[in-house]
Amino acid sequence: MDLNTVIGAALAFLLVLGAMAIGPGGVAVFIHIPSMIIVFGGTTAVTMLAFPISDLKPVVKVILVTAMRKTSTPTEEIDRIVEFANLARKEGLLALETKLQTVDDPFFSKGIQLVIDGFSADTVRDIMELEAEWEEARHATGKKIADQLGAFAPAFGMIGTLVGLVQMLQDLSDPNGIGLGMATALLTTLYGAMGANMVFIPVAGKLEMVSKTNQQLRKLMIEGIVAIQSGEKPQLIKEKLKGFLAPPMRALVDAEA
Amino acid sequence: MDLNTVIGAALAFLLVLGAMAIGPGGVAVFIHIPSMIIVFGGTTAVTMLAFPISDLKPVVKVILVTAMRKTSTPTEEIDRIVEFANLARKEGLLALETKLQTVDDPFFSKGIQLVIDGFSADTVRDIMELEAEWEEARHATGKKIADQLGAFAPAFGMIGTLVGLVQMLQDLSDPNGIGLGMATALLTTLYGAMGANMVFIPVAGKLEMVSKTNQQLRKLMIEGIVAIQSGEKPQLIKEKLKGFLAPPMRALVDAEA
Amino acid sequence: MDLNTVIGAALAFLLVLGAMAIGPGGVAVFIHIPSMIIVFGGTTAVTMLAFPISDLKPVVKVILVTAMRKTSTPTEEIDRIVEFANLARKEGLLALETKLQTVDDPFFSKGIQLVIDGFSADTVRDIMELEAEWEEARHATGKKIADQLGAFAPAFGMIGTLVGLVQMLQDLSDPNGIGLGMATALLTTLYGAMGANMVFIPVAGKLEMVSKTNQQLRKLMIEGIVAIQSGEKPQLIKEKLKGFLAPPMRALVDAEA
Amino acid sequence: MDLNTVIGAALAFLLVLGAMAIGPGGVAVFIHIPSMIIVFGGTTAVTMLAFPISDLKPVVKVILVTAMRKTSTPTEEIDRIVEFANLARKEGLLALETKLQTVDDPFFSKGIQLVIDGFSADTVRDIMELEAEWEEARHATGKKIADQLGAFAPAFGMIGTLVGLVQMLQDLSDPNGIGLGMATALLTTLYGAMGANMVFIPVAGKLEMVSKTNQQLRKLMIEGIVAIQSGEKPQLIKEKLKGFLAPPMRALVDAEA
Amino acid sequence: MDLNTVIGAALAFLLVLGAMAIGPGGVAVFIHIPSMIIVFGGTTAVTMLAFPISDLKPVVKVILVTAMRKTSTPTEEIDRIVEFANLARKEGLLALETKLQTVDDPFFSKGIQLVIDGFSADTVRDIMELEAEWEEARHATGKKIADQLGAFAPAFGMIGTLVGLVQMLQDLSDPNGIGLGMATALLTTLYGAMGANMVFIPVAGKLEMVSKTNQQLRKLMIEGIVAIQSGEKPQLIKEKLKGFLAPPMRALVDAEA
Repeated sequence: MDLNTVIGAALAFLLVLGAMAIGPGGVAVFIHIPSMIIVFGGTTAVTMLAFPISDLKPVVKVILVTAMRKTSTPTEEIDRIVEFANLARKEGLLALETKLQTVDDPFFSKGIQLVIDGFSADTVRDIMELEAEWEEARHATGKKIADQLGAFAPAFGMIGTLVGLVQMLQDLSDPNGIGLGMATALLTTLYGAMGANMVFIPVAGKLEMVSKTNQQLRKLMIEGIVAIQSGEKPQLIKEKLKGFLAPPMRALVDAEA
Repeated sequence: MDLNTVIGAALAFLLVLGAMAIGPGGVAVFIHIPSMIIVFGGTTAVTMLAFPISDLKPVVKVILVTAMRKTSTPTEEIDRIVEFANLARKEGLLALETKLQTVDDPFFSKGIQLVIDGFSADTVRDIMELEAEWEEARHATGKKIADQLGAFAPAFGMIGTLVGLVQMLQDLSDPNGIGLGMATALLTTLYGAMGANMVFIPVAGKLEMVSKTNQQLRKLMIEGIVAIQSGEKPQLIKEKLKGFLAPPMRALVDAEA
Repeated sequence: MDLNTVIGAALAFLLVLGAMAIGPGGVAVFIHIPSMIIVFGGTTAVTMLAFPISDLKPVVKVILVTAMRKTSTPTEEIDRIVEFANLARKEGLLALETKLQTVDDPFFSKGIQLVIDGFSADTVRDIMELEAEWEEARHATGKKIADQLGAFAPAFGMIGTLVGLVQMLQDLSDPNGIGLGMATALLTTLYGAMGANMVFIPVAGKLEMVSKTNQQLRKLMIEGIVAIQSGEKPQLIKEKLKGFLAPPMRALVDAEA
Repeated sequence: MDLNTVIGAALAFLLVLGAMAIGPGGVAVFIHIPSMIIVFGGTTAVTMLAFPISDLKPVVKVILVTAMRKTSTPTEEIDRIVEFANLARKEGLLALETKLQTVDDPFFSKGIQLVIDGFSADTVRDIMELEAEWEEARHATGKKIADQLGAFAPAFGMIGTLVGLVQMLQDLSDPNGIGLGMATALLTTLYGAMGANMVFIPVAGKLEMVSKTNQQLRKLMIEGIVAIQSGEKPQLIKEKLKGFLAPPMRALVDAEA
Repeated sequence: MDLNTVIGAALAFLLVLGAMAIGPGGVAVFIHIPSMIIVFGGTTAVTMLAFPISDLKPVVKVILVTAMRKTSTPTEEIDRIVEFANLARKEGLLALETKLQTVDDPFFSKGIQLVIDGFSADTVRDIMELEAEWEEARHATGKKIADQLGAFAPAFGMIGTLVGLVQMLQDLSDPNGIGLGMATALLTTLYGAMGANMVFIPVAGKLEMVSKTNQQLRKLMIEGIVAIQSGEKPQLIKEKLKGFLAPPMRALVDAEA
């Protein structure tokens, strides 16, 4: 789990909840279930209108997984690939099968499984590249949906506030009622602003960053898997994959070689 | 019919109507025919100003049909093409004519009709590709018009509210009149925001998605129709058209072959 | 004249005027000459600041003509060209001169005149293509100016409202005066919103559509004029120009040929 | 001096000042030096923060000169070049030196000076093209700075208004004080809107137009200066430079030739 | 240190603080720690949510260093390189080591160190180009984060204000309490606007300018370092590096040569 994302989100919510708590009436004043239903129900409903349901289901999963997942570093991936390469050279490709059970990245598992199943290097590479392409497309759709949610949430906040204001304006005889009516009306705008700026827009940004990093990792993994299959020496594989590391480090490595 | 779209739109409206209903005065407070006429009449009028009427008529139909239509899946299309190919091989191309009456997609019907009428493969392909291009252009114009409606609706909502505010401000002697005047003034802003965010903008998004999926389906259908004409074996046609399926599935299919 | 544009504009204004008329005080409440002068004078002044006067004069004409003009259809143009081609074959190129007087499209007239004056086909084509390019540039500048007017009008509406509010706030002793002062202050915002959304932005959209259609017509006309000069058979010219019609129609024509 | 720009700017300010003058309290009500300092001082300060001072100094000059300068027409430039060409052919290149003193365009002066100094045609062309490129870069930076000023001015207007509102809200006991406090608070928003929409944004637009026209003039001048150096016949130079005139005119000239 | 940036930022803050100081209650009225924590804490928290922490740490340093650093001029860099070249020719490459300690630009130091360490010219060039690329990527991420902060700050300002307004509206019985409550509510909007327009957005602009200039300097430095290694004559190196100066100056230099 990516602590950064969790801490960032938790911190943002704690700060706003804290600001609510120190005021008169505390947090309770800010909880209004019907307003929440309008803003988040409405936002979800119009997003459903625009996207086919077959897109929505896998994408919600992608958003949740990707937003929370800690992207592994290239170094971690290189270490894992070298470990598998060592095992394959010592005990043969079939020995990888039991070791696969410790891996929770379905992309890597699938690649190694194809190698165990004896597909040719070209087939493994083609399948894994298409898999990566497909994963990228899912990320892009996920970002698009998060963007939409971030755009519709404030709009529904405004719609809810307008509904509340029109209701409040029907009866101006009780001054205190006006204040409470307006407070309730403003809650939907607040929910919309919080949903967009504390969840949907940051998640869309996160998805974009994760997708970019992920694509680079996938390239490294495909090279590694194909190298394992060809039975290259683990040390050679390591050197080759270092080429995917950040430029300055790579350059020094080359220079030292 | 695309249930997703209908449910999404219905849900959004139900949520907002529910929020209106639970307030004092109920939904009746939010119905003001003159305000509706200004917002939606004005929005339509300036869109009419910008687009030639010859563009508007077919496009309104496109918007309605496309927004509501459930796009068929590639698998469904492949199955239909294989069925037609089987029939053509068993009973000849002319036998397709009666079967055509069960098809409600004018694009597919036209393609098969051209085959029955004996046009050459190149002619069929040229005509169908131009037909697909033309369809794409209609979708693009449809999206543009939906975008315009989504941009003008809030503008007319604001114009209506300003008109209402100026009228309300003429007489500030009756406090209750002020409240009701302002409530009425706000209704046009509410209608504009609802029209844009619950209808026009989601429909524009839907049109874009549908158009993209549709173009891929059209390519698959053109290949299928030309293959039927050439009398290829249904099983071969099926394999060929699988190439249009999502990459990972296609790749596995190739690998297994 | 393009009825669509006139009806669209008239309808939009009638709707808003109607909304004004049914309120207390009627339309008179919304007429404030100084506010109109600030908004539309200011908008014009800063547009003048940004564009050289040599650009502004022809462009205002372009905007008026183009926004109002009904673009002729390709079919109408083909018919006219065939008519001229018939005449040229029967009575010679010089006979076109009297017929030219019935034509009110300066582009077509100029092209035929060049043919009558005996310029070579290449020269006629070059001149007419440059003329079309030049026309397109004028349309683009026209659209840019309409865009600017649409952006500055709401800004001057806001400036006027701020001026009015500051004046109103000088004396808060008379409650009725506050209402009327605020009403007047809001009028400039209303004028700015109406100018932008009911005139400038739709006209910019219209100009873009007209320019696109016009360029396709110009290409068709250049081919037609050069064909008349070369003395091709009217029937052949017709077939050739059909290539500029909408793809599906063209395709079927080709198929039938 | 470009009368258009001056008249446009003067007209816009006169209109707004007129609107201020006819209200209660006149223009005096709208003059608040501290508010002006916040808006325009703040806008300048943050622009200074973003751009190095070495960029700012020449650019302010560019903005002033370019915004005010009346771009010469191509015809004027052709006439001047022909005049210089005549003189050079009659009295030699050195005779141009005295005539140069009547020229106030540094670009043209520099080019002729290089010719007098005996540099080769290629060197003159290279230097002048780099000079033109450099001038274009200064215009682009000028436009960028004007854009920034136009974006920061309303932001500082809003900051000033928020400061004023917070101050006003400290004491609500005197109703008249509230009005005057709010009026003062609104002044910064007004200044920001006026600065952006009546100066910075139109000037940025003007700079863009001037830069585009200027680049075309520079090309024409470089061709002319090189032609003078090569001792071509003035009449021939004129014909050649006509190629830079607007397409339709050029085309007719070519046709007549 | 770049005085321009410091003076610009200081001036902007002094102006706004001055405006606060001259009002009733002085600057103290504008200081509200909880509001500051919500706006800047929240803005930081959601930026943390979107960017991995491994990106954030180096980038904050980049922003601080780059925003404050005075970019050296090309002339300064050429002078330094010539100085190093002189020393290398007189006393050998190893003599550069002690002189390196006076250099505080890590990029230049690293390049010279590679030369001293005896790497080949190609290796030095490759490493330094990758280093420059890497530096550019850090600047780009820095700009992106500054852009995000500039977008989230006003959003959190609005969220804070909405929270404050809802709290204030709970009790409208004390008029003075309303004023103070609203003043406090507005403070977060003010902080958000100040953070975005006086810090984050200008810093993002500055980073973009610095990055552009820096890349040109890096190219010049790489050429210079490689030239030092090859033992070229200092005077020749100087001439060569002048090619990186502004075009007009370079051109005249070439002409004079």
